[in-house]
Amino acid sequence: MKLKKVITPLLATACSSVLFTGCGTQTCPDNGPEVTDAKIYRYGITNKDSLSAASKRALAWPEYGNEWFIHFEEQELKGDLAYEEGVVRRDPSAVIQHNGKYYVWYSKSIGPTDGFDADIETAKVFPWDRCDIWYATSEDGWTWKEEGPAVLRGEPGSYDDRSVFTVEIMEWDSMYYLCYQTVKSPYVERVKNQVGLAWSNSPDGPWTKSEEPILSPSNDGEWIEGKVSRFAVKNKGSFDSHKVHDPCIIPFKGKFYLYYKGERMGEEMYFGGREIRHGVAIADNPKGPYIKSPFNPISNSGHEVCIWKYNGGIASLITTDGPEKNTIQWSPDGINFEIMSYIPTPPHAIGVNRTVDSEKDPTEVLRWGLTHEYVTSDYQCIRRFSSWRKERHGNFADFAK
Amino acid sequence: MKLKKVITPLLATACSSVLFTGCGTQTCPDNGPEVTDAKIYRYGITNKDSLSAASKRALAWPEYGNEWFIHFEEQELKGDLAYEEGVVRRDPSAVIQHNGKYYVWYSKSIGPTDGFDADIETAKVFPWDRCDIWYATSEDGWTWKEEGPAVLRGEPGSYDDRSVFTVEIMEWDSMYYLCYQTVKSPYVERVKNQVGLAWSNSPDGPWTKSEEPILSPSNDGEWIEGKVSRFAVKNKGSFDSHKVHDPCIIPFKGKFYLYYKGERMGEEMYFGGREIRHGVAIADNPKGPYIKSPFNPISNSGHEVCIWKYNGGIASLITTDGPEKNTIQWSPDGINFEIMSYIPTPPHAIGVNRTVDSEKDPTEVLRWGLTHEYVTSDYQCIRRFSSWRKERHGNFADFAK
Repeated sequence: MKLKKVITPLLATACSSVLFTGCGTQTCPDNGPEVTDAKIYRYGITNKDSLSAASKRALAWPEYGNEWFIHFEEQELKGDLAYEEGVVRRDPSAVIQHNGKYYVWYSKSIGPTDGFDADIETAKVFPWDRCDIWYATSEDGWTWKEEGPAVLRGEPGSYDDRSVFTVEIMEWDSMYYLCYQTVKSPYVERVKNQVGLAWSNSPDGPWTKSEEPILSPSNDGEWIEGKVSRFAVKNKGSFDSHKVHDPCIIPFKGKFYLYYKGERMGEEMYFGGREIRHGVAIADNPKGPYIKSPFNPISNSGHEVCIWKYNGGIASLITTDGPEKNTIQWSPDGINFEIMSYIPTPPHAIGVNRTVDSEKDPTEVLRWGLTHEYVTSDYQCIRRFSSWRKERHGNFADFAK
Repeated sequence: MKLKKVITPLLATACSSVLFTGCGTQTCPDNGPEVTDAKIYRYGITNKDSLSAASKRALAWPEYGNEWFIHFEEQELKGDLAYEEGVVRRDPSAVIQHNGKYYVWYSKSIGPTDGFDADIETAKVFPWDRCDIWYATSEDGWTWKEEGPAVLRGEPGSYDDRSVFTVEIMEWDSMYYLCYQTVKSPYVERVKNQVGLAWSNSPDGPWTKSEEPILSPSNDGEWIEGKVSRFAVKNKGSFDSHKVHDPCIIPFKGKFYLYYKGERMGEEMYFGGREIRHGVAIADNPKGPYIKSPFNPISNSGHEVCIWKYNGGIASLITTDGPEKNTIQWSPDGINFEIMSYIPTPPHAIGVNRTVDSEKDPTEVLRWGLTHEYVTSDYQCIRRFSSWRKERHGNFADFAK
């Protein structure tokens, strides 16, 4: 007789944080979620005395909760941000508004990617190598005018001499802050990037750079010596032992929350994707110092950081990697994020729209925004996306009464 | 002071079926999931005394559990199944093998879709209207030869006189069974389809049709009279009050499990998609009678049925609609399905590969198979897909010891 493998479902053991401290709380009453005739009808259940596992899960859902479920579409931009062969424009920041114009910042570089097999001193190892941060403006969000560089790479020997890229923008107290990834030469596979900061009293600059980076990878992993591979480790260290990517600062609860994507030395690939997690570092002032939260990582999945404020808390779009890929999450405190929706694969590297009233709808900042497209593996361009909800409600309530 | 909306997370209240009967079971011990140093390290957690909600959910995941997480890609077919303008070939059955050739069945029709505004007696209201069931063979799974019709529409006045479509194939005891959707004229928006069955001792036919359908929608909804809309109801009825689609019969535990997609009168749209659920009807013999399970519906999300046997149970791919879209699920009993993975948006209308040893891997039947593509809204063609796992494991275990 064939020995059966034990199958452990992913969700059956997934106690949420609310349950973690013990059962019998009001989200998991000892006799299970409340079953009403209205709910039986709502979920099309044919026999309330014979509930399938799927029906039981449905009965535990909140009241409809359609608000966070959205679909995306992408569109081409016009003007200077339309695709240009030979040029990389990628990883757009959030969109802000100033003097009647939309502003966006992004990574810009030229030329093809060589990879790591070439001479690293002269090669371009990634599309985001050899970048400066540029910006563009638009009157309608569709046709953009490239204005010029905002932040350039530093002098040889500085922490940002090789590339400055993957930028975000924060407006605070009449000042503008750009935070971005920095790499110091040489850009080898094992290089540990950092996060830079620059500020100005105008979105058009000029920008003053922080003398020191404001965030660095943790220093607690251990490479196997004599190798170049980022996978060859004696000890992986923390979730952010290798990289601190996609920085995004949000003013929150009187402080400044710097969310970032951590990459790990000896990064494994499981649950269908890379082990990628988000962290947050918190400061009293925009210029820092930023202290990593002891609660890190604050996601268990995800890729590029996409964060916005809503209803007194912070919302987060989790994409690409991990079991919680393609979910929108929300936290009351910027630390403890719960899943609010499961959505079809969304665009990557989103720059949200911060010109709208983000309280109008849970995903108002995603009604339109910017993303990028890999037109080729060498060249990417900024694109626009839109999102919407599909809804149709009927008169079921009349029957349920 | 602005009144805060109460936010109810989707997952925090989502007790799984195992928890439903009360807490304190071994999947939700009173002191929470076991936290070991190995797990803290595995999930990159920086401080085991300060666990974020996301980290707590990660700690409750099963050991890696990478097996069910897959990615898909699609490819074009050659020969007679390549796209042909003016022709609809869609909703491929599973692929089986006979005398060294692969076989597939599918819906075939010709001409553009008119929709419901035209004269329904003469129009084609959907791409799947006016269909017959055809079949094709292939030596390599890439180049296909269209062999001819397998099951034609019935004589005027019969229950399948308008269209026969969305077919599946079952081999059992040296016999071949096709089950498929049937529509009786006129194909109005409110028409209730049925499921037909045909059998042969050869996959090349000839096929004998069942005199009566083997499955029908439930008869427990109530239309608002005098309207044509499928949304105008006094009472929605069961999850399958309007349609029984995508039939697929699986021999299981000495019986025959007919899985199907239910569509509901007065169908609402929430959780980001249509309210679509799967049901199962069980018979002692392939020809029926099929009795709907009292545990229906056995999914709370999903669209086309995609089902296979694995490890003594039944696996199911859930796509497109509902909070559990884009998951692979498994049940030990064909009734109680739990979520095994969350995957990026998979192909639609999959015909799995039943020529392989489905026990070799949880998703072996999805290594390659068939799907369809909307080349235009009028014309679809059969395509091929492949799937694989992304994996990279390191030496973390050494450190954790």
